[in-house]
Amino acid sequence: MPTPLVVAVDFGGTKVEAALVDTDGRLIEGSRHRRPTGRTAKIPDLEASVGGVVRDTIAALPAGAELVGVGIGCAGPIDRILGLVSPLNVPHWRDYPLRDFIAGVIADAGLDIPVTLEMDGVAITMAEHWVGAAQGVDNVMGMVISTGIGGGLIVGGRVITGPTGNAGHIGHVEVGDIIGDDTFGNPSALEAMASGPHTVSWARRQGFTGTTGEDLAAAYAAGDPVARAAIGRTGEAVGRAIASATALLDLELVAIGGGFSHATPDLFDHMRAVIAAHYFPYVRKVRIVPSALSSEGPLIGAAALVHRAHLLP
Amino acid sequence: MPTPLVVAVDFGGTKVEAALVDTDGRLIEGSRHRRPTGRTAKIPDLEASVGGVVRDTIAALPAGAELVGVGIGCAGPIDRILGLVSPLNVPHWRDYPLRDFIAGVIADAGLDIPVTLEMDGVAITMAEHWVGAAQGVDNVMGMVISTGIGGGLIVGGRVITGPTGNAGHIGHVEVGDIIGDDTFGNPSALEAMASGPHTVSWARRQGFTGTTGEDLAAAYAAGDPVARAAIGRTGEAVGRAIASATALLDLELVAIGGGFSHATPDLFDHMRAVIAAHYFPYVRKVRIVPSALSSEGPLIGAAALVHRAHLLP
Repeated sequence: MPTPLVVAVDFGGTKVEAALVDTDGRLIEGSRHRRPTGRTAKIPDLEASVGGVVRDTIAALPAGAELVGVGIGCAGPIDRILGLVSPLNVPHWRDYPLRDFIAGVIADAGLDIPVTLEMDGVAITMAEHWVGAAQGVDNVMGMVISTGIGGGLIVGGRVITGPTGNAGHIGHVEVGDIIGDDTFGNPSALEAMASGPHTVSWARRQGFTGTTGEDLAAAYAAGDPVARAAIGRTGEAVGRAIASATALLDLELVAIGGGFSHATPDLFDHMRAVIAAHYFPYVRKVRIVPSALSSEGPLIGAAALVHRAHLLP
Repeated sequence: MPTPLVVAVDFGGTKVEAALVDTDGRLIEGSRHRRPTGRTAKIPDLEASVGGVVRDTIAALPAGAELVGVGIGCAGPIDRILGLVSPLNVPHWRDYPLRDFIAGVIADAGLDIPVTLEMDGVAITMAEHWVGAAQGVDNVMGMVISTGIGGGLIVGGRVITGPTGNAGHIGHVEVGDIIGDDTFGNPSALEAMASGPHTVSWARRQGFTGTTGEDLAAAYAAGDPVARAAIGRTGEAVGRAIASATALLDLELVAIGGGFSHATPDLFDHMRAVIAAHYFPYVRKVRIVPSALSSEGPLIGAAALVHRAHLLP
């Protein structure tokens, strides 16, 4: 019997990637391809990037394998019913029919396989649950702290997509007391205070002279007091949002990845301190752990949309 | 065939009630009984009240009917696995085995029927979904705005209890920008700023001389500017918490009951204004409506734990 493989696609604010993924959540060597997206990219540029990585990945199909579906994880918001995407950091796509576009690329390649689209936070949470830090846990929030803050939910052992596909937007849950940047949205939203860029921007207002999350991490490691305050503030904000989500959903585990989550392991201690001081025992029970996935996580999650479809609504 | 009835029990911070409820969510006339609970009540007082209403209700069983189960809704937090309750406003019960106590009362009455315990917010949300404002809606949050602020969740058509039974605590989700009272818990939690007593306490700090939610509602109706500001502030706080919950869960409907929710219909307009101004279309879609249940709602919900058990995890 041929080896069943999924074409996994991860579309984000700076790049789109595709790869072939097997039923154990492993990427097929040589099948991973990447092209740029971004804030200035127009529709034809974006379609060229997406079409390019999908075609390159399909071309890498090994002998003795067959494609059984396409799973797409995309930055939110999305419309999972109509297959439309409006990634916040890709302004030229608003209600763009990404699922149909990729289905067209697949059909042009002579393939007749199902195409599933969900939010990237949903995909990464399914990856943590499948092969990562949340294996065997039924009540989980996956989180990504990076340019933005995203997430996804598994509750009672089932993936919560929400009717439109946007459940899991933890970056847009409010946090009390701490004021973030006045962005497109809400300065009280977690993302506006605790994403990598917003953490750096706060530090710069306190006199920090670096410009990136990597700069801030380096300053933190060197003992810079502003960097230490910035990490403490962001850790507290994330911890408070996790406390709210746990009060609402009785979560057992939160698994956090994304570039800025690696700034320092101390970031996790600040989050855990908020949880340890909470007045409800059922909130104090939630464990906060680093993601157990490599940079392949979003692609493994996109593949889980097909290989683990039984967990979806 | 005998008519199947449930012994429904609702335990709250001021009273405990019980009644017989049929498969259409109707209370059996003459079966509803009420006794006091409260902040100063000790364990024997509380057991006398609970045992009393349960025995009185069982004694009202009509001819031609049979009891098929007991459903208990209780103020949180609870432990649904062990059947323990720790109602915030009933300090003498901490990890009290309410489910086993009622099972004992039932056994002493010579009955052998299952006893189910869930949080009161879960029960009332099931009542809204069964016979109230949320019929036919798959993604719902029920809310009660009263002495405290509680809630429950139905997501993807299934009740979310959480592993410990505490999912739905919307009163303990943080709200940005607005500062509440420094209670036992967190002044940034919705309940600390927007419950009936905390709304009155804020108004009093602005010069309002009344002492109850009813006083505030009367002052509002008479055009008192402090009362108007207090209702606006509380409506905004509730709206912001609903926006956070909807960002996280992609809700379609929020149904709100409880004494203070009746202060004025304008309270709902302030909540809706927050939602209408949100930057995400999928958040803007959520409808906020008054509960369609009478004061029988919590008992109907407790009965739903048995009659509609297929919606539970």
